[in-house]
Amino acid sequence: MVELKRDELHASVCDPVSASMNFLNEVASRYPDAIPLAAGRPYDGFYEAEDVHRYLDAYLSYLRSQGLGPDEVRRQLLQYGRTNGQIHPLIARWLERDEGIRVPPAAIAVTAGCQEAMVIALRGLCAGPRDVLLAGEPCYVGITGAARILDIEVVPVPETAHGVDPAAVAVVARQVRASGRRPRALYVVPDFANPSGACLDVPARMALLDVAEQEDLLILEDDPYGLFGVDDRPRPRLKSLDTRQRVIYLGSFAKSVFPGARVGFLVADQTVVDQAGRRTLLADELSNVKSMLTVNTAPIAQAVVGGVLVEADCSLRAANREKIAFYRRNLALLLDALERAFPPSTRDSAGIRWNAPAGGFFVVMDVPFLADEALLERSAREFGVLWTPMSFFYAGGGGERALRLSHSCLEPEQVEEGVRRLARLVAALA
Amino acid sequence: MVELKRDELHASVCDPVSASMNFLNEVASRYPDAIPLAAGRPYDGFYEAEDVHRYLDAYLSYLRSQGLGPDEVRRQLLQYGRTNGQIHPLIARWLERDEGIRVPPAAIAVTAGCQEAMVIALRGLCAGPRDVLLAGEPCYVGITGAARILDIEVVPVPETAHGVDPAAVAVVARQVRASGRRPRALYVVPDFANPSGACLDVPARMALLDVAEQEDLLILEDDPYGLFGVDDRPRPRLKSLDTRQRVIYLGSFAKSVFPGARVGFLVADQTVVDQAGRRTLLADELSNVKSMLTVNTAPIAQAVVGGVLVEADCSLRAANREKIAFYRRNLALLLDALERAFPPSTRDSAGIRWNAPAGGFFVVMDVPFLADEALLERSAREFGVLWTPMSFFYAGGGGERALRLSHSCLEPEQVEEGVRRLARLVAALA
Repeated sequence: MVELKRDELHASVCDPVSASMNFLNEVASRYPDAIPLAAGRPYDGFYEAEDVHRYLDAYLSYLRSQGLGPDEVRRQLLQYGRTNGQIHPLIARWLERDEGIRVPPAAIAVTAGCQEAMVIALRGLCAGPRDVLLAGEPCYVGITGAARILDIEVVPVPETAHGVDPAAVAVVARQVRASGRRPRALYVVPDFANPSGACLDVPARMALLDVAEQEDLLILEDDPYGLFGVDDRPRPRLKSLDTRQRVIYLGSFAKSVFPGARVGFLVADQTVVDQAGRRTLLADELSNVKSMLTVNTAPIAQAVVGGVLVEADCSLRAANREKIAFYRRNLALLLDALERAFPPSTRDSAGIRWNAPAGGFFVVMDVPFLADEALLERSAREFGVLWTPMSFFYAGGGGERALRLSHSCLEPEQVEEGVRRLARLVAALA
Repeated sequence: MVELKRDELHASVCDPVSASMNFLNEVASRYPDAIPLAAGRPYDGFYEAEDVHRYLDAYLSYLRSQGLGPDEVRRQLLQYGRTNGQIHPLIARWLERDEGIRVPPAAIAVTAGCQEAMVIALRGLCAGPRDVLLAGEPCYVGITGAARILDIEVVPVPETAHGVDPAAVAVVARQVRASGRRPRALYVVPDFANPSGACLDVPARMALLDVAEQEDLLILEDDPYGLFGVDDRPRPRLKSLDTRQRVIYLGSFAKSVFPGARVGFLVADQTVVDQAGRRTLLADELSNVKSMLTVNTAPIAQAVVGGVLVEADCSLRAANREKIAFYRRNLALLLDALERAFPPSTRDSAGIRWNAPAGGFFVVMDVPFLADEALLERSAREFGVLWTPMSFFYAGGGGERALRLSHSCLEPEQVEEGVRRLARLVAALA
């Protein structure tokens, strides 16, 4: 009977981040009554399983209204499809309508969730060991994971309270280049990042685009939370400001539609030129990578998301009004509950503080003790509350005394009860 | 405006196989009236778009029958799901019932099509540049593509008319090892391979398993066509004979259900042992790779396939009776049409011959002229028939004077007309 040695498998199998996330899930499953301030998934209550039928039908009607006959409609849903997807024209209309991003539909590739979009973009851009990715730190584990399966080095750029600092990006890019490597792209979540909650202001966005131009970087702009700001202030996407085509935009429907479709996309409207001077679109070039990863994105899943877009006349902002209000309220409740549980008189001397993000699913709390896996287990067992150690989001150490708190999948009363339980944990450690 | 240099992108972007396939698709789209003896996709006529609703409902009913309440049913369909999928127990029942493969459901990982299963298996097994994949040649382009995006070397094992020769596998494995590299796995399609149509006999299957044991190889058994034999003779899957757990089975629902779900799977019941002696299941270890590629397979797409399995009481052989008969008839028609178009009296002297596969979608025809892209274009333009140059399936040269012919997506009368047109092309070149 064959026995495979674990240390002879690829490093991605033994990824420490995956191990941490598995630990988190395992603790969550052992303590099902613990309130999951750890979980960043969207709230369950916005959809019914039966809605899927309606979305499918809406999409099929849309295809018919475009002049497709029954055979072609069937083929669109059930046959292999175009590598870069089928609902790209609907996505293009939504991006223009809601986000001010004007790109030709051909520059959009529909992917098996945003995770695949990251893998495709990284694979296409990073040709060898010299090509590295810069990423603000603390960093979303999806992008470090994608880099790991492709053996691509990620060089962290320490974030400030206001997100990644453009000047710091330039410094790191120059250091990387001086070491003989090539900084190929910067990964950034400008709006309400996971895990930091940070949001770049408009001058920082403009500066980041300038740095990308000066340092010859592309920017991978990941935008899963941009819809969920605490107010209606416009926060322009980097891609909508991107007159020099430095930005590859990565999109997700997991929060704005639902995770069960696993549909995401990338926008890559850059020009590629070969040695003979022929010009192509980066999205078309990346379709070769897509075809080798997953061939094409499940047409059935695309149809469901397409149906949502059709029903919403391609405005997800309008279609998500209820969700936007829900997450706003939950975030406000979380911040308010923290304020009550840790009043200023006590928290400052105790070394407790947290940020107040302008949107998104996450708040980061600094604590005066080691917030490690052992404490998480104790927190679940003795205090009935789960959180995520911030150290999970640092590759080379950091975040040891901080927690990520999330409100996104909770009922409002659970948010408040979760914070009360957290306060008990903190008191017990004082 | 940024311009990216094509030769600074990853090699997978500029993959010659993709370029060839793109050329084929491009010719097909320019000559829509040409009969596509080139296309290996399944026939469109077996399903209606409306069936999707019924399958979804069948799966939701099944979940309810398993005791899941409405909230949990909704979560299964619309929320993030288990990394290795949700319909693995149904797949395990089908594999046991139809294929004699007995594995615990936990050893099955549901993937975004079989293509992702290949990427996951290769990524997990090949840890560095020393680890290479062996593959019978001519070779399916999906596996060479998967290896290319991961920078994994593929070493060809020349096939005979009876498929890959176990003794040749052993020879190549030893050569690879002698050169300081490690032959980690062999990719093989034992039943009606794409493109060769070859099928391994049972002694060869047993011998291949012995070679895997002797040479410390794993076998990646890809089985997209096994259901479609010309007779009901049992052809045991390698995995069903695999008493030493040398086989990772790769499965597809593209032909047995439909391509539009993009659901595939892998079976990896091997034991993995770490330095502390802890034992885990390879499928569980590979779930880390899966989580970094696509997080999980679209639950909506899994639900549709799950519904097909539920309706069929987990026998796809029974559910596919109509399709099996259709492809049998089409293959017989193709062989018969070739026999009539190229009678023995003329074909032998002309250097024309073809194989007679015992099933599957493909026939290979040797011709006395260069069957290259230029000829394909001429064939489409002047003769109205498309085929695939066999050279597409050789990495380092080969197949220059051979065509792959497929019957799978055609109406029976198109098969016959396609061959008549092909005969006109051949006559014109004589």
